[in-house]
Amino acid sequence: MKNYAKPLSNLIGELSKLPGIGGKTAQRLAFHILALEDKEAAAIAEAILDAKRNMKYCSVCGNLTDVDPCRICTDPGRDQSIICVVESPRDVSAMERMKEFHGLYHVLHGAISPMDGIGPEDINLKQLIIRLQQNDIREVILATNPNIEGEATAMYTARLIKPSGIKVSRIAHGIPVGGDLEYADEITLSKAMEGRREL
Amino acid sequence: MKNYAKPLSNLIGELSKLPGIGGKTAQRLAFHILALEDKEAAAIAEAILDAKRNMKYCSVCGNLTDVDPCRICTDPGRDQSIICVVESPRDVSAMERMKEFHGLYHVLHGAISPMDGIGPEDINLKQLIIRLQQNDIREVILATNPNIEGEATAMYTARLIKPSGIKVSRIAHGIPVGGDLEYADEITLSKAMEGRREL
Repeated sequence: MKNYAKPLSNLIGELSKLPGIGGKTAQRLAFHILALEDKEAAAIAEAILDAKRNMKYCSVCGNLTDVDPCRICTDPGRDQSIICVVESPRDVSAMERMKEFHGLYHVLHGAISPMDGIGPEDINLKQLIIRLQQNDIREVILATNPNIEGEATAMYTARLIKPSGIKVSRIAHGIPVGGDLEYADEITLSKAMEGRREL
Repeated sequence: MKNYAKPLSNLIGELSKLPGIGGKTAQRLAFHILALEDKEAAAIAEAILDAKRNMKYCSVCGNLTDVDPCRICTDPGRDQSIICVVESPRDVSAMERMKEFHGLYHVLHGAISPMDGIGPEDINLKQLIIRLQQNDIREVILATNPNIEGEATAMYTARLIKPSGIKVSRIAHGIPVGGDLEYADEITLSKAMEGRREL
């Protein structure tokens, strides 16, 4: 990047810090931005600042929101007795796209990972326990990711909640719809067998 | 994007206008930006505004620059008698990465494309002719892209310059280094045959 003038190389540098944006892509984006109308480029910068200014975490569920508590937590049309526990705000939007879950969420902002020094106290778990104590919750669905950290987090959380008598469930693992049995890894396949249901 | 709060959906919308950034990637980037420190997010926005503010087109060659005339045009170490004509500032940086061309550049900011209503007067050609008249130029290398528009632009430009007696050349087309003959398309292959050299 030595060939570039400072403002350009700085822009390329900032863009290449973004996830999935390599050096080449950052260059392409930077040149594109410089070719935009001033107004259009300013709109991008303003959108970043505005989003950072106005989006915060819901004090109840931890999801990203522009109002606190968030629209999901305060929606009277949703089932206030079911909480789906996820790792990140992106998981909430994945669930919402599905349009089939009408309960509430709880965002942990991470997963337990002793290898990375992330323990139960480093994620948003305490607040979940407080919610369970203060509200009449019927079921907690653990929808953390199906990897080692997500499983560990689900196990830990389940053990934490169980004594209270609240129903705790874990989303199913199995062959993805449209997937091919032949290409499924053994662990997924064994999970699919384990989770089989009578028809 | 209906599920998202306004500031977030606005940010996703702005990001997805960028080239090669689809809806999913824009979402991922937006969530990433929201998870950044305020300072880090502000740095991205500031880099965009700063680059737009401080980068302009060189009044001599049309390349992107923070000083006018640009550092290449004013570099006494470069051969002022050779001009390499390219379509975009990105092509200049590709050439500069090669580190083997030490002449000057001329950026057309496009190519002649009658299909898109872009004629010779819509690209930075007039300024090239003025440069050729006012300076002692020995050779013009046409390095527009090897596609229909780039070829048409090269042909047109060559015809325009020829009467002045200045040498006009075109970069070679052929099999890319490391490429495989078997997978080369016929046109590239025929260009490679056409451009063969005695060893």
